[in-house]
Amino acid sequence: MELRSMIFKTLLVMIAFYSTVCTSQPAQAADHEKLLSDPGVYATFAAFKLDPEWWKLDKGAREAAAAAVKEVVHKHGAHIAIDIYLLRGLSEHADVLIRLHAADMLHNQSFLVDLMGTTLGAHLMNTSTFNGMTKKANYVPNFPDETQAALKTPADPGAKPYIIVIPIRKDAAWWLLNQETRTRLMKEHTEAALPYLKTVKRKLYHSNGLDDFDFITYFETDTLADFNSLILALQQVKENQHNRRFGSPTLLGTVHSLDEILDVFTR
Amino acid sequence: MELRSMIFKTLLVMIAFYSTVCTSQPAQAADHEKLLSDPGVYATFAAFKLDPEWWKLDKGAREAAAAAVKEVVHKHGAHIAIDIYLLRGLSEHADVLIRLHAADMLHNQSFLVDLMGTTLGAHLMNTSTFNGMTKKANYVPNFPDETQAALKTPADPGAKPYIIVIPIRKDAAWWLLNQETRTRLMKEHTEAALPYLKTVKRKLYHSNGLDDFDFITYFETDTLADFNSLILALQQVKENQHNRRFGSPTLLGTVHSLDEILDVFTR
Amino acid sequence: MELRSMIFKTLLVMIAFYSTVCTSQPAQAADHEKLLSDPGVYATFAAFKLDPEWWKLDKGAREAAAAAVKEVVHKHGAHIAIDIYLLRGLSEHADVLIRLHAADMLHNQSFLVDLMGTTLGAHLMNTSTFNGMTKKANYVPNFPDETQAALKTPADPGAKPYIIVIPIRKDAAWWLLNQETRTRLMKEHTEAALPYLKTVKRKLYHSNGLDDFDFITYFETDTLADFNSLILALQQVKENQHNRRFGSPTLLGTVHSLDEILDVFTR
Amino acid sequence: MELRSMIFKTLLVMIAFYSTVCTSQPAQAADHEKLLSDPGVYATFAAFKLDPEWWKLDKGAREAAAAAVKEVVHKHGAHIAIDIYLLRGLSEHADVLIRLHAADMLHNQSFLVDLMGTTLGAHLMNTSTFNGMTKKANYVPNFPDETQAALKTPADPGAKPYIIVIPIRKDAAWWLLNQETRTRLMKEHTEAALPYLKTVKRKLYHSNGLDDFDFITYFETDTLADFNSLILALQQVKENQHNRRFGSPTLLGTVHSLDEILDVFTR
Amino acid sequence: MELRSMIFKTLLVMIAFYSTVCTSQPAQAADHEKLLSDPGVYATFAAFKLDPEWWKLDKGAREAAAAAVKEVVHKHGAHIAIDIYLLRGLSEHADVLIRLHAADMLHNQSFLVDLMGTTLGAHLMNTSTFNGMTKKANYVPNFPDETQAALKTPADPGAKPYIIVIPIRKDAAWWLLNQETRTRLMKEHTEAALPYLKTVKRKLYHSNGLDDFDFITYFETDTLADFNSLILALQQVKENQHNRRFGSPTLLGTVHSLDEILDVFTR
Repeated sequence: MELRSMIFKTLLVMIAFYSTVCTSQPAQAADHEKLLSDPGVYATFAAFKLDPEWWKLDKGAREAAAAAVKEVVHKHGAHIAIDIYLLRGLSEHADVLIRLHAADMLHNQSFLVDLMGTTLGAHLMNTSTFNGMTKKANYVPNFPDETQAALKTPADPGAKPYIIVIPIRKDAAWWLLNQETRTRLMKEHTEAALPYLKTVKRKLYHSNGLDDFDFITYFETDTLADFNSLILALQQVKENQHNRRFGSPTLLGTVHSLDEILDVFTR
Repeated sequence: MELRSMIFKTLLVMIAFYSTVCTSQPAQAADHEKLLSDPGVYATFAAFKLDPEWWKLDKGAREAAAAAVKEVVHKHGAHIAIDIYLLRGLSEHADVLIRLHAADMLHNQSFLVDLMGTTLGAHLMNTSTFNGMTKKANYVPNFPDETQAALKTPADPGAKPYIIVIPIRKDAAWWLLNQETRTRLMKEHTEAALPYLKTVKRKLYHSNGLDDFDFITYFETDTLADFNSLILALQQVKENQHNRRFGSPTLLGTVHSLDEILDVFTR
Repeated sequence: MELRSMIFKTLLVMIAFYSTVCTSQPAQAADHEKLLSDPGVYATFAAFKLDPEWWKLDKGAREAAAAAVKEVVHKHGAHIAIDIYLLRGLSEHADVLIRLHAADMLHNQSFLVDLMGTTLGAHLMNTSTFNGMTKKANYVPNFPDETQAALKTPADPGAKPYIIVIPIRKDAAWWLLNQETRTRLMKEHTEAALPYLKTVKRKLYHSNGLDDFDFITYFETDTLADFNSLILALQQVKENQHNRRFGSPTLLGTVHSLDEILDVFTR
Repeated sequence: MELRSMIFKTLLVMIAFYSTVCTSQPAQAADHEKLLSDPGVYATFAAFKLDPEWWKLDKGAREAAAAAVKEVVHKHGAHIAIDIYLLRGLSEHADVLIRLHAADMLHNQSFLVDLMGTTLGAHLMNTSTFNGMTKKANYVPNFPDETQAALKTPADPGAKPYIIVIPIRKDAAWWLLNQETRTRLMKEHTEAALPYLKTVKRKLYHSNGLDDFDFITYFETDTLADFNSLILALQQVKENQHNRRFGSPTLLGTVHSLDEILDVFTR
Repeated sequence: MELRSMIFKTLLVMIAFYSTVCTSQPAQAADHEKLLSDPGVYATFAAFKLDPEWWKLDKGAREAAAAAVKEVVHKHGAHIAIDIYLLRGLSEHADVLIRLHAADMLHNQSFLVDLMGTTLGAHLMNTSTFNGMTKKANYVPNFPDETQAALKTPADPGAKPYIIVIPIRKDAAWWLLNQETRTRLMKEHTEAALPYLKTVKRKLYHSNGLDDFDFITYFETDTLADFNSLILALQQVKENQHNRRFGSPTLLGTVHSLDEILDVFTR
């Protein structure tokens, strides 16, 4: 255990050093873009509910606690893409959802351990955590050219204030289908989704073995009616018969800056 | 029993009178009427249980807290239709249910975040939240004329003190049926419901992807026996075989004004 | 909303007046008998667990709290049949179960809201609530004469200290069977139960739509071995294949007077 | 490991010695023996977890509370066979399990109500309660003579420090099999269990209608490897296909005297 | 009961003595290696979440509490292999997971009872406990020689910071397959896993009857992408159809020394 322990401490020192040295990073946003688009990136979705005790703290204490959260976010921001969403009011499961992307799952854990170690963190009840990773598209390379072309339709520019996160577990029969059959079914699934590419952005995470489901599906939209129609369309293709779990929980929330979220919790 | 029963009937008559007399309300109510009847409206049903700490506050503090809730309701009332129901005593899930209709889901969230930010709100445990939206009738246009005509039967005038909310998830097979078959099954379902149009008002919300089910069904009645018969009739048609989830929870409560609900929590 | 609120307050005043005037009612027990035997009566079963804080109150405070509960029971006793059972020790779900029968579900809610508004009520955690209603026997009129005659066997006189409450949900296939087939299956079910009519009293409540199941079955016995044999016999007929849910929870308790129950919680 | 192992074996020998020497206990134990072997006895298994508040009491208060528990046990010991097990460390469900056998279920309830009314009891959270009763063997009389003879193999003498409790619910199909078929399947089940009669003691309780399952199975062993092999053998016979629920929870614990258990909670 | 109690106390004294005498044990690591590789070893996985009260203790109190935990670990370390993992941030189920291997399940319980009896232990909520045992490979001896040879591929040297624990329950049909068929299916399963032997270490525990599942599978890796591919490969063989439960919970965490974990909880 000694050697292992030494290595771990060295890692902590290196991360600390890195955090100090790299605070005035120029290309941070670009890095985040990369984390958000590359395959092989590890994502953690952590949902929290504030305990009732939090609301008994006076405003000053809550503001100090919020400042400490900002420091933790700043410390880790260089190598983790951190997104934060407000679920409060739209989900009984959680008040806030944090989405993390990093080159290593250890980074996600390290950030969350630090966050939960703050005064505010001590009042955060961790109601759900989903782990997954990004991969290269699996079926798309075998789709017809026109489907592949259609998939390149860019999303409409502009803010997409709503996000939805839906974990999915396929049944055993799905995984026993051969690759060709699955490609055929996924082509039908994908074509049902094409009409919504402009108004609903999608991102897929693979979770097999990293959590109790196979996929985390993440959506951004400014038109919930379109998102609702998209899901309805996806329910009407054969591949949907192989979804043993779809949601449970379905997390619906809105995109916010850290400051906005902290405002809600300190005002 | 006689006197109590007489009083109760008197109340019903007075409410019916009130409903008739007071139809020409200010513009705000008309907007609400529109939100409650238009397609494309977003609805959130949020159920709350008061935590035990609430009851330890003295009466003055609880009354001040109630006043703050009224202000929040007033602030948002212009663009959200807010209905409030008492579940306490009839459901272990929650004490109170709030139903919101707005042109945008963000409005519902904004109201609930404000509500939960009040002193009373800090004692409200959010036990369930259902999200959905209204749409134009899907199958009705293809029903026979006489079924369509029958569906226009107006509900009996007068108060409908009971409400029931039942979330529904269909099975995968349902969504794979073609539109024609589903229309046929829904015609049978609808015809089973016709005898109850006068005494049970129904409203349907679509939830696919917005929550862990496909529909929120909402009922108002003053005759629970009729409502019970209606559900029994709906269980006896083939479409019912495709309900994977029906209720869980079923929420049964009574209609009240905000003042009445706050009275229960401050007296 | 003002007028509505005024009416509601008027009602409360009238009820309060009524409660005062009608305290020395003679025929109360007879009314209860009627509520317990008539069809069209609404029943609520509410189970509660005392929170740990209750036991920290001193004996004086607990006795005052118990007295307030008696007043609430007295106030509502004229038009609600109130039965109370001790589950503590025999069920992890609850300490106490209250069964209410009234001509209107509003009465049951009104009583429970008042009860939960007392000092003791603030310590009662509502762990389960079942709602149902009584109806005329559905299948019996079509049973053979000798089965109908056998069903009239009176229960043995004497106390039946044990009660068991089992909620039941049938599967979709059950409700699609025609009335004749269901009558045949229920005849087999009923004949399996005949040997236990003397030692196990049964009462059936219909819950379709009023809660997450179709029936509440209620049993009283002084011989749990006979009750166990009855259930075993009912498991051995074909109708049992259509029970999707049977229990969950099964509530086993004992019959007590209000005074005895309050004794347990104040001693 | 050697020394510890030696000590452990010494302990087992000493316990075995004790079991042999102390067989001629006072009349009370004889009654207990009868309760533990007769048919028609009612059993309650009640599992409890200590709440975190308990550990904040000072040692003196905890010892006084432990003494009160001993008094309750003494008071009821004449007509209830009381066994107590330590689950803490081996199950997240509970810290302690109490098994009660009495001629009447009321006795079990009465003891548990008294226990929960002590200072220690107020800190016991009742996480699971199972109710059942003993009966004469149902299928054994129709087994071949040699199987019946084999079943009389006495368990090895000596302490059996481990206990396992597994509730079982059969599917509807099981109860519709005719008695002959069930006897054949149970014969296969029983023969699979024969090799373990010496090292694993079994006891069966019937629960139909008394709780949410059909059987409580109780095991004592000093060789968990043998118990594991027994369950594996029972999974490999056809009757196992009819187990709709097996465990959930499975309770694994160790046998202790009341003094030992109270020691753990007061030291 | 007195004698039994005396024996138990004697045992405790002997163990205490033994702990004192044997502190400077040379071969401890070797013993641990043996516990981690031998068949017939009993394993307990206990997961804990720190309650919110812990974080209100001042740093001094938390450090003293941490020191007491180290003593308990030291006391039992001679005959139990103790591994500790940080789940916090990667699982909502628990903050910390402790894996114990001992020659007897009693040792695991004794350690955990001692741990939960410390000041820190009083703040640990036991969210999950899994019990199992190691056995000789069941199917491997019947695999072809080349598969057996491939299985001997050593894991890459170097730290494997990630661990995953997945409990598995097979369906009834699995256990009714004959040994030959199961061997064939397990051969296919095993061959799917071969490409990952270098980067993912696996260990299997048998739980039938010791807990609510049949197996505990434990994995160590430094490449979560490989682990994810391994699970995906295992989902694509026929044996996977017989997994009735796979995970629920899936526990993902990181390897740490006790000091590192206690650091997280005291800083």
